[in-house]
Amino acid sequence: RRSRRGVEPQRLPAAGWTAYDPTLPPVGEGTIHKATFTVKEAQQEVAPGVTQQVWTFNGTVPGTTLHGRVGDTFEITLVNDGSMGHGIDFHAGALAPDEPMRTIQPGESLTYRFTATKAGVWMYHCSTMPMSLHIANGMYGAVVIDPPDLPPVDQEYLLVQGEQYYGPAGAPGNADKIAARTPDAVVFNGYPNQYDRTPLTAKAGQRVRIWVLDAGPNESLAFHVVGAQFDSVWKEGGWLLRCGQAPGQASGACTKPGIGGSQTLDLLASQGGFVELSPPAAGHYSVVNHEMTLAERGAHGVLAVTG
Amino acid sequence: RRSRRGVEPQRLPAAGWTAYDPTLPPVGEGTIHKATFTVKEAQQEVAPGVTQQVWTFNGTVPGTTLHGRVGDTFEITLVNDGSMGHGIDFHAGALAPDEPMRTIQPGESLTYRFTATKAGVWMYHCSTMPMSLHIANGMYGAVVIDPPDLPPVDQEYLLVQGEQYYGPAGAPGNADKIAARTPDAVVFNGYPNQYDRTPLTAKAGQRVRIWVLDAGPNESLAFHVVGAQFDSVWKEGGWLLRCGQAPGQASGACTKPGIGGSQTLDLLASQGGFVELSPPAAGHYSVVNHEMTLAERGAHGVLAVTG
Amino acid sequence: RRSRRGVEPQRLPAAGWTAYDPTLPPVGEGTIHKATFTVKEAQQEVAPGVTQQVWTFNGTVPGTTLHGRVGDTFEITLVNDGSMGHGIDFHAGALAPDEPMRTIQPGESLTYRFTATKAGVWMYHCSTMPMSLHIANGMYGAVVIDPPDLPPVDQEYLLVQGEQYYGPAGAPGNADKIAARTPDAVVFNGYPNQYDRTPLTAKAGQRVRIWVLDAGPNESLAFHVVGAQFDSVWKEGGWLLRCGQAPGQASGACTKPGIGGSQTLDLLASQGGFVELSPPAAGHYSVVNHEMTLAERGAHGVLAVTG
Ligand SMILES: [Cu+2]
Ligand SMILES: [Cu+2]
Ligand SMILES: [Cu+2]
Ligand SMILES: [Cu+2]
Ligand SMILES: [Cu+2]
Ligand SMILES: [Cu+2]
Ligand code: NA
Ligand code: NA
Ligand code: NA
Ligand code: NA
Ligand code: NA
Ligand code: NA
Ligand SMILES: [Zn+2]
Ligand SMILES: [Zn+2]
Ligand SMILES: [Zn+2]
Ligand SMILES: [Zn+2]
Ligand SMILES: [Zn+2]
Ligand SMILES: [Zn+2]
Ligand SMILES: [Zn+2]
Ligand SMILES: [Zn+2]
Ligand SMILES: [Zn+2]
Repeated sequence: RRSRRGVEPQRLPAAGWTAYDPTLPPVGEGTIHKATFTVKEAQQEVAPGVTQQVWTFNGTVPGTTLHGRVGDTFEITLVNDGSMGHGIDFHAGALAPDEPMRTIQPGESLTYRFTATKAGVWMYHCSTMPMSLHIANGMYGAVVIDPPDLPPVDQEYLLVQGEQYYGPAGAPGNADKIAARTPDAVVFNGYPNQYDRTPLTAKAGQRVRIWVLDAGPNESLAFHVVGAQFDSVWKEGGWLLRCGQAPGQASGACTKPGIGGSQTLDLLASQGGFVELSPPAAGHYSVVNHEMTLAERGAHGVLAVTG
Repeated sequence: RRSRRGVEPQRLPAAGWTAYDPTLPPVGEGTIHKATFTVKEAQQEVAPGVTQQVWTFNGTVPGTTLHGRVGDTFEITLVNDGSMGHGIDFHAGALAPDEPMRTIQPGESLTYRFTATKAGVWMYHCSTMPMSLHIANGMYGAVVIDPPDLPPVDQEYLLVQGEQYYGPAGAPGNADKIAARTPDAVVFNGYPNQYDRTPLTAKAGQRVRIWVLDAGPNESLAFHVVGAQFDSVWKEGGWLLRCGQAPGQASGACTKPGIGGSQTLDLLASQGGFVELSPPAAGHYSVVNHEMTLAERGAHGVLAVTG
Repeated sequence: RRSRRGVEPQRLPAAGWTAYDPTLPPVGEGTIHKATFTVKEAQQEVAPGVTQQVWTFNGTVPGTTLHGRVGDTFEITLVNDGSMGHGIDFHAGALAPDEPMRTIQPGESLTYRFTATKAGVWMYHCSTMPMSLHIANGMYGAVVIDPPDLPPVDQEYLLVQGEQYYGPAGAPGNADKIAARTPDAVVFNGYPNQYDRTPLTAKAGQRVRIWVLDAGPNESLAFHVVGAQFDSVWKEGGWLLRCGQAPGQASGACTKPGIGGSQTLDLLASQGGFVELSPPAAGHYSVVNHEMTLAERGAHGVLAVTG
């Protein structure tokens, strides 16, 4: 009988398992970005030794990351190759939900067009009821819209927190556990503890930006990096803390820091932001949800820093 | 046997049911506002098919909303027409709690006088132990104190999140469920999903302000409007984001927006704020606690926008 | 059989019990601060009638508070006088975790040197797995680094929220309850309701600063003072609200307040900040986590104000 907690950190993923790439993909060319989001339902190993039916946008959990600039337009073709109704809701664009967010049946498609007029890390997710189950089963992802004056950094990552509620082997999750808010695992980018095995990387003294989105469906996120302090923090459209760095001055320590630093960014479900840090020396900096029970249930990874 | 979740969205309220008016009432005349708050204990349909004994200020859940300006004085006569001790605590005024917040017995009354020296949306609630039960059973509400330079908007609403923990039919809630933090329903303005039936309304392009208070007693609130983005957000006494709009320039889109936008305002129990948005086109914009299990337990409504 | 909730407010502590001093200790002399942190495992009364084996830094829960200025260096000798491995993680300093945060065995010691380059209230905690248990059992505390321009106040306190998960009498807690996130008690400075018995104190009209840290391991904190309003709030490295007071102007009301006030500061596990308030008159101002079930489980105290 599988334990209620589900995550067994000592157990290994199946042969051939690969981590979800945590690198933020570059901004696409031009100002109009087209993409196809194909809904796929598939058996996947969602944690070491645990196979479930996941529901995905384009086969991965989280789904494809979109990255653009303020003012860019995105034209997404949603194709339902699944066995039940699904839809999509992009927080990144303001529009009347009725048509673009409607549920489409297997074999159908729709075009969802939005202009990203505001910067931030915006959640997208399946818009079909019960949304808690469609999100928990893998139907979520991020749209990153850079603020116009965002300085370049040496390393730029994206971590999306999700939750896993296991049903029997091969099943599409467990709605009772969702209703009880007792996740078996809490994960960054779809798989518990994956960046303990294949860490995020940086060099000592480099400037690192980590975009963070809490996709829920339920839990909060107290985002912390062991051994690091955040000199710049952005949350939901504004700076909470900002290093006085000039644009283009990417590497090394923050030259005009504010007086304070942040140890932890707090997000509730569907919120996002980013933190910036500069690891001072080579070593292993854990990246955690500092709600410790959730870290121990898989919301844990490592930033491996070389000299 | 009633399910643990309690909320059955397909079930209808009893005939004659009316929604709690979500419109923020206007500021009263003058600078001294007098009101009587009568404690009433009564049987009410708190959700479709669920009748409980609610404890109220003036017969509604939430109780009477007060709305004033910085510097206004409120003189509240609290009358206990119930069967047990009750009291009141207004966060909107700073004062020594001992006398004004004391518990009064059935048949007694007291006068609670406070001056609102600071802007915000302030919780009030019964001050009698166990407060978790008195709040869960309906004894909470809001005092809205406008910041002096707050621009007018086209539509101004107030949503107060509460929680329901059902006992047997007609009972005053269930203290064990409160202690276990397993609400049967989470609600805006006292009734699950009520604004799915009688939506908030606006016209496309109008500017809408929604004041939000999380009355708890326990849960957090990730306040989101599907299809909309917040260009202005105020939380606990300060702006998190502010549209560069000149005072008096009420309608339409934000003309000097900041670079960022907010998808979700995070509140813990007893916190409040407001968000501003401008729905771009006609349609149905859901208003939710984006902690999805709580949305599905009733923290859901609709903003219906006409062209 | 002990009830799940554990806290019985009417029960008295054992004879000889003394409260944890909530006063923030003064900044030490000089810019280099040396301290020994000795890990001790001991039987303690953690709540009235409840004795557990606690694991501590220097014998108290929370452990020794450190207080310094931006730029100060701390040199901590960690000595493990316990019966199992322990370590320490100071959020107050940025450094590679590998060596200083390593687990040391009974009888071993290590020196942990960090420079506090950023202001804030920084958590420290045992770095040994399972961290949720080591933290819940008492291995946490605070490092307060003053912002350079922080005005003096009349009373300055520190409250650290912790959680208790009881095992059998004398046992070191209960890991299953931690995993289930069902704390028996939630406490300020290590003991439920202790400041109901030995309140924080102030005089009417004085300016009071309360530093607050949420040590978790899991719960959030909606920090509120009944009868008071916060005119200044600092959280995670920045001001959320700031009274326009000139440095040195310590007593009395905020002379150039912002337009807004805050009723509640929201912290997730591992976050910290401070609030400032000026109680207007003599009386008893409760200090609570406004998540009411947690207040009723011990996250409650009193600020006793004399005329
Ligand atoms: Cu779906
Ligand atoms: Cu930590
Ligand atoms: Cu009452
Ligand atoms: Cu959403
Ligand atoms: Cu330890
Ligand atoms: Cu209160
Ligand atoms: Na929870
Ligand atoms: Na750290
Ligand atoms: Na927050
Ligand atoms: Na909770
Ligand atoms: Na939206
Ligand atoms: Na208060
Ligand atoms: Zn970018
Ligand atoms: Zn740490
Ligand atoms: Zn790990
Ligand atoms: Zn108003
Ligand atoms: Zn949405
Ligand atoms: Zn609904
Ligand atoms: Zn100090
Ligand atoms: Zn209060
Ligand atoms: Zn108490």
